[in-house]
Amino acid sequence: MTSQTSTDGVTERSFTLGEIPGVLFTPEGATGPRPLILMGHGGGQHRRAPGVLAGAYRFAAEGGFAVAAIDAPNHGERRKSERFLRFAGDMRARMAAGEDPAGLVGAMHDLLAEQAVADWQAVLTAVQELDHVGAGPVGYWGVSMGCGLGVPLLAVEPRIRAAVLGLLGVHGLAESAARVTVPVQFLLQWDDTRVPRDQALALFDALGSAEKTLHANLGDHGGVPEFETDTALRFFARHFG
Amino acid sequence: MTSQTSTDGVTERSFTLGEIPGVLFTPEGATGPRPLILMGHGGGQHRRAPGVLAGAYRFAAEGGFAVAAIDAPNHGERRKSERFLRFAGDMRARMAAGEDPAGLVGAMHDLLAEQAVADWQAVLTAVQELDHVGAGPVGYWGVSMGCGLGVPLLAVEPRIRAAVLGLLGVHGLAESAARVTVPVQFLLQWDDTRVPRDQALALFDALGSAEKTLHANLGDHGGVPEFETDTALRFFARHFG
Repeated sequence: MTSQTSTDGVTERSFTLGEIPGVLFTPEGATGPRPLILMGHGGGQHRRAPGVLAGAYRFAAEGGFAVAAIDAPNHGERRKSERFLRFAGDMRARMAAGEDPAGLVGAMHDLLAEQAVADWQAVLTAVQELDHVGAGPVGYWGVSMGCGLGVPLLAVEPRIRAAVLGLLGVHGLAESAARVTVPVQFLLQWDDTRVPRDQALALFDALGSAEKTLHANLGDHGGVPEFETDTALRFFARHFG
Repeated sequence: MTSQTSTDGVTERSFTLGEIPGVLFTPEGATGPRPLILMGHGGGQHRRAPGVLAGAYRFAAEGGFAVAAIDAPNHGERRKSERFLRFAGDMRARMAAGEDPAGLVGAMHDLLAEQAVADWQAVLTAVQELDHVGAGPVGYWGVSMGCGLGVPLLAVEPRIRAAVLGLLGVHGLAESAARVTVPVQFLLQWDDTRVPRDQALALFDALGSAEKTLHANLGDHGGVPEFETDTALRFFARHFG
């Protein structure tokens, strides 16, 4: 833990675990155990992306939860590997040439998933050792790349008991999605120009969870309505309350 | 208004308007204007069906809303016309013979829609004359047949400003759905054996509303999770609050 600031009733603590820069959000003055939400950002973003911050503040202030956000491998302040840079450049060129992006995006998530899963498992263990987080129930929130890295995490990590996912197609994820068994709230944008509707519906369908709810809203990839932060909060509160 | 009982903080008043038997739910001791939710029941059901009551009590007790529920034409305590009885018998026989039910269900709703729309318009006018209802915003809640009769109502009735619909396919409704412009929350059951998934997605798609959210849950036609009553309450509260 390297620094601490408090705003709007939420305390942010920056941390570094090995090579992983992260930030922990808790209600100001929090003591004792509480639910923990892990928040994964989108492709090209970082641990303090606007979509992450909007959720983190409400989850902490209104839900009383702890929230941990980290930079994904090769994102934010983390060193970018030669392999990643080559892959990203190649991906941009092939997308510009008109190639279907679904396979390319899936392959990119594949490249990052193994490290991302190990990162989250280490962060989860470390953060739960803090007195004001403790061994409460754990949730995961991540859409787009945050879903692409979250599904493999949920497939292998039994400590996570509920998840908000979405904004991604089934490409490359069918097998790990089938191993997800926790309750899921899945966001889909009806007019998503990056994720074909049928591929997103297929990923929702592929999830092995006995309880899962699809929330589809009008608009493109970046246009998830603000009220879905409220529904995510209520979803976690329902399962962890 | 012919009788009155109070339970769990909610007052129920039975009424008859012309040939229409209805029930009005309000918070106990309510005075002054408040939002009004019209609740339409499913096929073969009546104004006090369990799905209607569950919503009505929560909308009144927790939302502070007034809720009106009426028997649909040829349903509940209303006289069944010869034409309806012939049609219903014919429909059962054709379904038993394996005919695709979507067209039959659509035709049945068509038979009832004109009268149902006129009924709701008269009830809305009458109920809003009561001091403890008044001219607040109006919502509509109805799934399955309640959606089949609700879509034509929403298409022509500008006093209704938000609606929860669903559990129905697009058959026969495409044109009226396109004329619906208010915010809609649309329920879909992912494993509905009565309503093919693609037809339900097509009805959601056909709605003309600029704000609409699809909520799809696992399970068959009758298996809408209890928490969707909570999301409906929050949807109306968000628009009418």
